[in-house]
Amino acid sequence: MTTTPRSASASPQWELHPQLAADTVPVGDLAVSRLLASRDANYPWLLLVPRRTGAIEIIDLEPADQSELLHEMTRVAHTLKSVTRCDKLNIAAIGNVVLQLHVHVVARRCIDAAWPRPVWGAVPARAYAPGALDEFVAAIRRDLGL
Amino acid sequence: MTTTPRSASASPQWELHPQLAADTVPVGDLAVSRLLASRDANYPWLLLVPRRTGAIEIIDLEPADQSELLHEMTRVAHTLKSVTRCDKLNIAAIGNVVLQLHVHVVARRCIDAAWPRPVWGAVPARAYAPGALDEFVAAIRRDLGL
Repeated sequence: MTTTPRSASASPQWELHPQLAADTVPVGDLAVSRLLASRDANYPWLLLVPRRTGAIEIIDLEPADQSELLHEMTRVAHTLKSVTRCDKLNIAAIGNVVLQLHVHVVARRCIDAAWPRPVWGAVPARAYAPGALDEFVAAIRRDLGL
Repeated sequence: MTTTPRSASASPQWELHPQLAADTVPVGDLAVSRLLASRDANYPWLLLVPRRTGAIEIIDLEPADQSELLHEMTRVAHTLKSVTRCDKLNIAAIGNVVLQLHVHVVARRCIDAAWPRPVWGAVPARAYAPGALDEFVAAIRRDLGL
């Protein structure tokens, strides 16, 4: 097995948690994180998952990865706000159920299904109309230059 | 009125939102944020409020303030984990109800009142026993060198 001594290298055996894989579609890979889009049409909802084996908390990451994740988080927040023109961003690392470190970046509207409550567990997920999730992902990719 | 041209200076007219003031006790001031402790005894719960007038989103802050806030967030997360030896950290910037930018850093236990749900709106707040909140705040101050 090839060793990867630098924290900035991808963890060789990193795999996306199956629950996160089931709930999302891939958007692209940033330097540290895999960017995903939730299949729940209730809210435009992105997730950043650092490709680092065993990371559960942000503070588990090496300092350089931590800084890069936080940079990616603000970059993705700018993009999501610009693409959706939302009323509010909700950004959170919770992970009580799926332990693999993931950061939610959610676009909220004052008229969305859960407003003003947080989105987690608020209302059942709703499927996108055919093509709509692809369009959202394409807009995010364009804005991020992916 | 004295002008404060540098983003790293405190906003001259910044005031803590009255709802945040009512729900917390002050812990101390970091370079950018006022650190607060929630009065809710259900979970050890800290909040970082950047002392910047008008900031609602993390991405509203000047880049230098953004970096410092994210640094303070990880520093406070380390401290909260070390003081509480919690099972999980929950870190979030939501702000759908109180718009003034604030970042929650919450220590979760697998046996706490809301586990595994997020804490917001999960169960009614519970008062600390006399002296217990002061002890928690003192431990946080010691660990942060405040």
